[in-house]
Amino acid sequence: MKQKKIPPPVLITIFGAKGDLTRRKLIPALYNLYTGGHLPRIFAIYCIDYLESDETDFKNNLLTGINEFSRNGIAEEIKWKEFAAKLFYIQGDLQVDDTFLNLKQSAAYFEKQLGQNCSRIFYFATAPRFIEIIAEGLYRYKLCNRILLDRIVIEKPFGTDLNSAKKLNFFLSERFAEKQVYRIDHYLGKETVQNIMAFRFANNVFEPLWNNKYIDHIQITVAEQVTVGKRGGYYDSSGALRDMIQNHLLQLLCIIAMDCPSAYQAELIRDAKTKVLKSVRSLSTKEIFKNVVRAQYVAGSIKNIPIPDYRAEEKVSPESSTETFIAAKLFIDNKRWKEVPFFLATGKALPKPVSVIVVQFKDTPHKIFKGDIVPNRLTISIQPELEISLLFESKVPGLQFKLQAVDMDFTYKESYTEALPEAYEALILDVLRGDPTLFMRADQVEAAWKVVMPILDAWAKHPLKKLHFYKAGTWGPEAARQLVKPYAEKWFELPRIERMNSKPLITIKDPTNKTRS
Amino acid sequence: MKQKKIPPPVLITIFGAKGDLTRRKLIPALYNLYTGGHLPRIFAIYCIDYLESDETDFKNNLLTGINEFSRNGIAEEIKWKEFAAKLFYIQGDLQVDDTFLNLKQSAAYFEKQLGQNCSRIFYFATAPRFIEIIAEGLYRYKLCNRILLDRIVIEKPFGTDLNSAKKLNFFLSERFAEKQVYRIDHYLGKETVQNIMAFRFANNVFEPLWNNKYIDHIQITVAEQVTVGKRGGYYDSSGALRDMIQNHLLQLLCIIAMDCPSAYQAELIRDAKTKVLKSVRSLSTKEIFKNVVRAQYVAGSIKNIPIPDYRAEEKVSPESSTETFIAAKLFIDNKRWKEVPFFLATGKALPKPVSVIVVQFKDTPHKIFKGDIVPNRLTISIQPELEISLLFESKVPGLQFKLQAVDMDFTYKESYTEALPEAYEALILDVLRGDPTLFMRADQVEAAWKVVMPILDAWAKHPLKKLHFYKAGTWGPEAARQLVKPYAEKWFELPRIERMNSKPLITIKDPTNKTRS
Repeated sequence: MKQKKIPPPVLITIFGAKGDLTRRKLIPALYNLYTGGHLPRIFAIYCIDYLESDETDFKNNLLTGINEFSRNGIAEEIKWKEFAAKLFYIQGDLQVDDTFLNLKQSAAYFEKQLGQNCSRIFYFATAPRFIEIIAEGLYRYKLCNRILLDRIVIEKPFGTDLNSAKKLNFFLSERFAEKQVYRIDHYLGKETVQNIMAFRFANNVFEPLWNNKYIDHIQITVAEQVTVGKRGGYYDSSGALRDMIQNHLLQLLCIIAMDCPSAYQAELIRDAKTKVLKSVRSLSTKEIFKNVVRAQYVAGSIKNIPIPDYRAEEKVSPESSTETFIAAKLFIDNKRWKEVPFFLATGKALPKPVSVIVVQFKDTPHKIFKGDIVPNRLTISIQPELEISLLFESKVPGLQFKLQAVDMDFTYKESYTEALPEAYEALILDVLRGDPTLFMRADQVEAAWKVVMPILDAWAKHPLKKLHFYKAGTWGPEAARQLVKPYAEKWFELPRIERMNSKPLITIKDPTNKTRS
Repeated sequence: MKQKKIPPPVLITIFGAKGDLTRRKLIPALYNLYTGGHLPRIFAIYCIDYLESDETDFKNNLLTGINEFSRNGIAEEIKWKEFAAKLFYIQGDLQVDDTFLNLKQSAAYFEKQLGQNCSRIFYFATAPRFIEIIAEGLYRYKLCNRILLDRIVIEKPFGTDLNSAKKLNFFLSERFAEKQVYRIDHYLGKETVQNIMAFRFANNVFEPLWNNKYIDHIQITVAEQVTVGKRGGYYDSSGALRDMIQNHLLQLLCIIAMDCPSAYQAELIRDAKTKVLKSVRSLSTKEIFKNVVRAQYVAGSIKNIPIPDYRAEEKVSPESSTETFIAAKLFIDNKRWKEVPFFLATGKALPKPVSVIVVQFKDTPHKIFKGDIVPNRLTISIQPELEISLLFESKVPGLQFKLQAVDMDFTYKESYTEALPEAYEALILDVLRGDPTLFMRADQVEAAWKVVMPILDAWAKHPLKKLHFYKAGTWGPEAARQLVKPYAEKWFELPRIERMNSKPLITIKDPTNKTRS
């Protein structure tokens, strides 16, 4: 359980202060934490970047970022002035020792003024290649050496494969204690994602059903509407498997599939999640080309805006075999989940941004009512609407005994009027509080890489084998539909509120006719 | 499964045609069935009563009844004219042979005109003392002797105790086949009540939870706002136990507690229900005065209208010990329900008309979240709103990990725009179709009497012992609250839609502090 108390005095340093992440996410989140009274009375934010910058221009740029991206809209002038007074731009080349020396002196000055027990948080909002450089600088200048007070926050990717992840973890472990390292996966800060644990473990009625006796399959789908856009340089060497599956989707899988920890404590929860990853069945190359579908978008349109071929995007190789879509059927080899397929799918340039987890229950073993009976289905929508709903069969009112599948649902929108905190607010506050529950531990990251490595290897060996294509603005390739077809009619269930009381989009086939593979 | 087809040609005879039931329920139901196209093309309704009546006056009186009581409001003139042309008033004294002779001739004439395979339905909308008289008349004149085509419909009370019920059943069984006898309990025709079976048996996720491992207790409560009014003569010799528990509430108990029948067939369903009644634990006199609370209302007010003492009501004895409220804790001694209390409560002159079934699940055996966790609760509301909702713990959106009980719900009102058919429509159509599923079989009636007999006997022996009193317009006596208190804070959960997002009214005590009795 997170403590309610305000975190201790803190000095936050952001590396990469002129980057997109800082302007769109970190500063709006910190500003909201400030106006919400969640930051300690004593704090400062050092913003470090390579280029010289006028402090006023720099701050004004952050202000427009808040006005554009904060959930609370336009910043209040007086609050912004108070907040901006705690922001300091420090120009510095990360490859130069002086930068860290300078930082050290600034920190020392700040702390001398305001107390030695100040916590230090270093946020790596830079490209991945700077992680080691910053870590080494912090280490060498003893900027982050108090295990209980000093923390670093790093963004994915945590390596580009198992080996590089191991190397990175080892490098960090030689300089910091594991408990000082906060590997952020912003998906885990989302309200509905956090709620899944409450839903599963604070309610007694779901756990008895949460196993292969009652669950037919589970779908975890994250549809992105955005294309690769300007991120072609990074993305083309990464792909959907590295960019989305290895982190976000596998983490959702962990939360859905994990056993109940014996207490709500960071290490116990991270143990339980790691256990799930370690139980994911390893696929042979042959199985990979059967159970994992990859695809790349080609020219199409989204909301009437024409989209080019992925291969024609900026900084993307014209012969690229990088997948912008992936759908995989995975199995977890433990007692609870034996033979329950977990379908993971994600892609870019899809018709809508939708993140949904669908828990499809099995059909009743014995049917006493005639006609098609739709098996129960629990839908946890993360995006665009936060919603939990249970599909169940009900009698249609009227003089016939006719059944119809209807939804029992709980919608955040209808239940809460306040704007939900952004994932980054929740996660940054956790860092300040020293609660690593929602962050990735080194062994978690490695276990997740272990799951995806055989797929990466198989694809590296056969770069074009079974690479499918789909038109931008469609729901992915036919091959993905074929993968899920024995279990469900389609991917990407829309939240109920979007469906506007229409018939459910996933029509589950009668399991008695299933041709399981 | 009910057939969709229109029932065969039918001749309906209503005995007691000038009574309240005919005007308020039967004719509006038949009229709605007619306008809805559910009646066969060939039908006639013979309306029999003691007094002479001008046919036009009689029909006009029925028309005002439709306009006042039908769910569809004012009758359409042309439709009413068509319908009224099939209505015939027959004056007749039920104690005189000529009445049946006359009826026989009329029926023969009608059938000669319209075909011999006409089904005959005889609806006993009279006082109970006429049941045997009418039955004997029908029998003697062979008016109802074709087992597959002719049926009688009788209204409760089916006897006033076990012996009289047995006598009545025997009397009927000597004159009609059991399958010709339709004992109506209009509660079983209500949409939500019918839906409970669909809910329980067409969905695979509830059955695994539907037992003493997961269910803490079940409440079945039917609150009536009406007082005894003009029914004092009947009611004072009956009381809430006979009037409500023996039929409506025990039938709801059966539907909630029954095992899944092997098929949706009338006899299998009635077998399963009867099995429940036969498993209800018989209470000793001592247990009765501990587990069954009876009470009588005294002067108070409802909606600012003053209500007199029950004992001061019309035709009620000034020394009456008749209960107008009853709350009972019952147990079903089988494997599924061992030691799960079923709380049944009903009363007159309560603040609101509410019928609700609450399935209270047990607490999680192991709690990983701090603070009060409200165990899951499934609420099936029958009145005033048709609604099914599941209370579950969810994370409150925000930067603390705080839990709150919220509702996932399904509301008929929000899901269906058409007015629901009245219970009487559904049930009369079932009679026409020859589907006895929702009607009480002789052995069911007797089994229900067996459940209440020990209580009736104990009270007869000690007429005033522990007779409690409650003010009209309150939720019953304190003793009833004490009965349920180890399990729940209060009776009579209001449907969610009525609570308007306020905190749940039943606050379940922490089961670890329970002092079970």
